[in-house]
Amino acid sequence: MNTRLPPLMKAVAAALATSAALLVTGPLQAADKEPISPIKPAKVTNPAMVELGKKLFFDPRLSRSGFISCNSCHNLSMGGSDNLKTSIGHNWHKGSINSPTVLNSSMNLAQFWDGRAKDLQAQAGGPIDNPGEMAFTHELAVNILTSIPAYRTEFKNAFKKEPIDIDQVTLAIATFEETLVTPNSRFDQWLVGKTNALSKDEIAGYQLFKNSGCVSCHNGPAVGGNSFQKMGVVEPYKDTTGAQGRFAVTGKDADRFNFKVPTLRNVELTYPYFHDGAADTLTQAVTTMGRIQLGRTFTADENAKIVAFLKTLTGEQPKLTLPILPPSSDNTPRPKPFDN
Amino acid sequence: MNTRLPPLMKAVAAALATSAALLVTGPLQAADKEPISPIKPAKVTNPAMVELGKKLFFDPRLSRSGFISCNSCHNLSMGGSDNLKTSIGHNWHKGSINSPTVLNSSMNLAQFWDGRAKDLQAQAGGPIDNPGEMAFTHELAVNILTSIPAYRTEFKNAFKKEPIDIDQVTLAIATFEETLVTPNSRFDQWLVGKTNALSKDEIAGYQLFKNSGCVSCHNGPAVGGNSFQKMGVVEPYKDTTGAQGRFAVTGKDADRFNFKVPTLRNVELTYPYFHDGAADTLTQAVTTMGRIQLGRTFTADENAKIVAFLKTLTGEQPKLTLPILPPSSDNTPRPKPFDN
Repeated sequence: MNTRLPPLMKAVAAALATSAALLVTGPLQAADKEPISPIKPAKVTNPAMVELGKKLFFDPRLSRSGFISCNSCHNLSMGGSDNLKTSIGHNWHKGSINSPTVLNSSMNLAQFWDGRAKDLQAQAGGPIDNPGEMAFTHELAVNILTSIPAYRTEFKNAFKKEPIDIDQVTLAIATFEETLVTPNSRFDQWLVGKTNALSKDEIAGYQLFKNSGCVSCHNGPAVGGNSFQKMGVVEPYKDTTGAQGRFAVTGKDADRFNFKVPTLRNVELTYPYFHDGAADTLTQAVTTMGRIQLGRTFTADENAKIVAFLKTLTGEQPKLTLPILPPSSDNTPRPKPFDN
Repeated sequence: MNTRLPPLMKAVAAALATSAALLVTGPLQAADKEPISPIKPAKVTNPAMVELGKKLFFDPRLSRSGFISCNSCHNLSMGGSDNLKTSIGHNWHKGSINSPTVLNSSMNLAQFWDGRAKDLQAQAGGPIDNPGEMAFTHELAVNILTSIPAYRTEFKNAFKKEPIDIDQVTLAIATFEETLVTPNSRFDQWLVGKTNALSKDEIAGYQLFKNSGCVSCHNGPAVGGNSFQKMGVVEPYKDTTGAQGRFAVTGKDADRFNFKVPTLRNVELTYPYFHDGAADTLTQAVTTMGRIQLGRTFTADENAKIVAFLKTLTGEQPKLTLPILPPSSDNTPRPKPFDN
């Protein structure tokens, strides 16, 4: 174990050594003995609100241009991300930070890299009125929706009250997003006892992931998302964005460069990596994380095994029927993509 | 009948008067007596190629930015269009012309407003290397796809040969697009004998549509798409784009300002209207068409009835499962949204 590891990581790695010893004789049958637990399938308790939220998620009329929807940067065909270093916003604005995946995001302790939104509903309103993203206002977005008869009906059915307001909009989007979970990855199959779901190398990669200390931050059902941690524990990270992380929310020096630990679920699909999208590949990401967080240089073989393990975290992607959006009415304000 | 109508329109309108007389006693039972025929459901003969084409249609990696896909401007949630006057392209480029719907586009006599592509396959390559649209090259797009193992497998399964080339890419996209038909509109139900599928006003609107001469250009299963016609027969159209129409292809003066007649299928969903997207609503579009093509001023009541009829042309939208795109490999060239 690298002696420069911070105390917490040392303790976690030591505690995990016991279960790692078990692993060499075969996978555990009980998921609750592992620091990562299986993803549970979504429970839909309000299908009308989920369906409405899905439409809103795909509707570019929530943007000033009529061109950008939630799905533009959290593309559900691409692991709930845009696979860009930083996103493209209104008027081709270059985003300041990498778009995190929306998949399994309900498990995050808070939303955005700096955790400034306490939950998915609080997050959903952010991009709509961010001038560099959808560049609209909540009021104008609500006006658009209110002008569309089919939306008025759907909101009324989902919320049992009128008129439409922004809290309904963001709650519907969040309710849809809560269904975007990815159960039944090969790793989860292995966790619940399907011993041949993983190869030897993948299991070896998981052991390395645990023994090296990765799991001290990347744990729980989402394999992350449940704490803020400093980016650059052992060695400073050369950030390319100017982001300050959690400090921007709390103003505390101790929080400078603390970011929400990203989920590693579906990480094969959510490249590039880190808050600045600087790592194009998992190999690069593992190399950098080893060096700056753990003070460790993985061999090529170790790196490949960890990457092989990480790819077993790709779960079943949400099977979605593309929504058909209700058409604008004659009274719907028209989008303005080029007026600035 | 307006005496300024061109001879062809007069002849068609006269011929249609007979069937119109029948209509007042009830709808016809036989679709073949009408100038509009029902849309037939898609026949999928090559499901592997359709599925591959669907992925390509949704894949923004065919663009230089990694952000723009076919679906960006031919959005299948929005009637196969983007509902913008003119489209947004690479680097927020303002497009020169309105994006026509991809729905039922296989029925068009040619593709693009000026018909410069003979079929859907010839069209599909256009936006990819248009600097104002996806701003890529065919070679780079093929390189991207070739670097992705799952695509290599899918192409091999669909085409039984290697390596991937641009003709395979465009053929797969076109094969998918051929499935994007919208059968079973209320109008089609009425055409095949469901007498209560349309209201009295909608039938009156259809009669006006026929008797006024609209049907001389908007006929056939797609209610258009099968001829080039001059925009501004009776009165010049005040174009806002500088487009020259068919003249750009043939160089013949007679073709100046001739455009492909757009389909009116799903026209309720494909606003704004005309090659320059200048008409925001169907009411405006009917008013302008009446004036500049037919020399006729529809009363508000007539206009409303025609619009009511047009809305019966909305068919069943393609029911699509959102494709899950295969992830890039470590060797896949990364998108470059901001390098210009």
